[in-house]
Amino acid sequence: MAEAKPNINLGLEGVYFTESSVCKIDGIAGRLWYRGYPIEELADQSTFEEVSYLLLYGRLPKRKELDDFSSQLAEERALPEKTARIIADMSGKTDPMHVMATAASSLSAYDREADDTTRDANLRKSVRLISKLTSIVSSIGRYSAGMEAMQPDGNMGHIENFLYTLTGRRPSADAVSNTQAMFILQAEHSSNASTFSALVTASTLSDIYSAVTTGINTLKGPLHGEADEAALRMLRAIGTPDNTERYIEEALAGKQRIMGFGHRIYKTYDPRARIIKRRLEALQGSASEEIGRLTQIALRAEKLMIDRLGQSHGIWPNIDFFAGPVYLSAGIPVELFTPIFAASRVSGWCAHILEYWQNNRLIRPLDYYTGTLDLKYVPIDAR
Amino acid sequence: MAEAKPNINLGLEGVYFTESSVCKIDGIAGRLWYRGYPIEELADQSTFEEVSYLLLYGRLPKRKELDDFSSQLAEERALPEKTARIIADMSGKTDPMHVMATAASSLSAYDREADDTTRDANLRKSVRLISKLTSIVSSIGRYSAGMEAMQPDGNMGHIENFLYTLTGRRPSADAVSNTQAMFILQAEHSSNASTFSALVTASTLSDIYSAVTTGINTLKGPLHGEADEAALRMLRAIGTPDNTERYIEEALAGKQRIMGFGHRIYKTYDPRARIIKRRLEALQGSASEEIGRLTQIALRAEKLMIDRLGQSHGIWPNIDFFAGPVYLSAGIPVELFTPIFAASRVSGWCAHILEYWQNNRLIRPLDYYTGTLDLKYVPIDAR
Repeated sequence: MAEAKPNINLGLEGVYFTESSVCKIDGIAGRLWYRGYPIEELADQSTFEEVSYLLLYGRLPKRKELDDFSSQLAEERALPEKTARIIADMSGKTDPMHVMATAASSLSAYDREADDTTRDANLRKSVRLISKLTSIVSSIGRYSAGMEAMQPDGNMGHIENFLYTLTGRRPSADAVSNTQAMFILQAEHSSNASTFSALVTASTLSDIYSAVTTGINTLKGPLHGEADEAALRMLRAIGTPDNTERYIEEALAGKQRIMGFGHRIYKTYDPRARIIKRRLEALQGSASEEIGRLTQIALRAEKLMIDRLGQSHGIWPNIDFFAGPVYLSAGIPVELFTPIFAASRVSGWCAHILEYWQNNRLIRPLDYYTGTLDLKYVPIDAR
Repeated sequence: MAEAKPNINLGLEGVYFTESSVCKIDGIAGRLWYRGYPIEELADQSTFEEVSYLLLYGRLPKRKELDDFSSQLAEERALPEKTARIIADMSGKTDPMHVMATAASSLSAYDREADDTTRDANLRKSVRLISKLTSIVSSIGRYSAGMEAMQPDGNMGHIENFLYTLTGRRPSADAVSNTQAMFILQAEHSSNASTFSALVTASTLSDIYSAVTTGINTLKGPLHGEADEAALRMLRAIGTPDNTERYIEEALAGKQRIMGFGHRIYKTYDPRARIIKRRLEALQGSASEEIGRLTQIALRAEKLMIDRLGQSHGIWPNIDFFAGPVYLSAGIPVELFTPIFAASRVSGWCAHILEYWQNNRLIRPLDYYTGTLDLKYVPIDAR
């Protein structure tokens, strides 16, 4: 082992592994574009269906293209009976993300095109996955609450139908609009850990169901998708607005990590957090007592954190921080935040997978061996 | 976008992302060590149970430690009823690797320690996964053949029980020994794509069931785990020994990839292929007509390929090339080769995951954006 120790890129931070035209993050300016469109314009003017089309096809659809795409999504909402049974069996017994990953993994068995590896078939499978992952989330929500799953309503848009099949009630316009914004904001974020892991799976020429399941399994981690749940739990633990400063100061003094702040790429205010903060402020007047209180806590915590860690340490609010109260106001329980993240991000996963396969290369880095060599195998009774 | 274009490490080839003491590959000398022990000594003298212990704990077990470990593996063989149902429902309807991933993903719901994230609990979960993934493979084999799953036999070792529950017959000593060697040789191979993807999942502090499911999904690809199936299909397509040279020459002339040759790391003879080739030669005398014929074809193809591409292009036989006839001789059908690979490699996946968590860092590389920016969002009817 005379070789010199190589440079080790821990966490692959700063390492480029591919080119892509799906998404650009400017972490210094705090800007984000999907396929060249600023996130602010998409979040306020577009729909999740349109953004999914944009991500997959690389351009905004014309009217007829969007109508067709939305119809396909609506037609694919029903889950195979065996997939529904998996959700019924597992819900409440384990993390909802495990239920989601297992259900998503089962879908290939009931896709008659499973073996077709053409780009067109993979686009159709992407539509199926985008549609069905949202159905999986509402089914998990229903079964976890001890209720039967609802039949989808083919006349509703993707987000309206989601909230309807989750809550059993026709949702308010505000609930649809805010949930739609969250789906749009979470649909894509370049080669984050879940997308990257999906690409590693895809790079062996495995299939899109396998790659998306990998994305779900990676998103499950508290350092990735589960951060919005953790942030809401903190707001609830703070309890009352007047307790905010004391709680945060104590947490900082104890070197606890404050969930919803700081990001590998953004070294300034997360532009998605800005959009959701604005929606949260707009909600305050009409919100329930709990949401109003959590919103006040969030706004006070944000102000204090920016004072303490913003300019000085580059630790700013990210999208996870404000998501909780927005979701609660739409009737979405905390344990579904991460599954919804996956049901949104699947559009980005599929866009990246389809792009990567156009110029595929097996992703296989190296680890640097630090152990000994040429140990002698000693028979067990002589050890 | 005035920034200079950065260096892009396509496929992360040659990039180090972590240190590890699990496995060393010397791709130039053609050598391989698990935890410092040369693979040749392990393949000939050890067992899969012992190698799994070695990988997880970093040292060879004493007699009592191995007995305890083997007992734990034997006790964990039964599958939860709902997992067995998933296998029964999906087998024959999709790729066996999808069945395996879905079944593995479901296991967390039936692990009473699922939420315990301590190292000790994760070691116990590793034992469960190592034991149950092999049970999943034999169940898939049974259901795919239209038969019921067999009850495990607690008095048999891991490999003997596997072959017994797959075929319904007590296996020959040769079948156990050769299958054992394959399980040992496939148990670990540093940060290959499946292991690396499992680590990306693990690096978000997701859990070991999710990370192992990711490994299965990645191993599924034809550029990774499915290569041994493809190699056997080629031997069968060649048909007769005398057709070997013509077939290979035509394939090379047509620039077809010959499965079972070439490797990202080995630029010489794969040491695992050498071990399995020796076992294949030993089998020839006693083998069936089909195995004898496939073995002759494999040996002639290997000789020709080494002449054509070995020294000149660094393309040498890898383990996948000789695995097929060895498996067939133990009564294992071709569609289970990759699931068996996963049932072996799970020991390496778990060893790497446990090691990585001792010094965890989120794995999140960058992609280089090549698209446009600041496109104007045009309302749909104006497009």
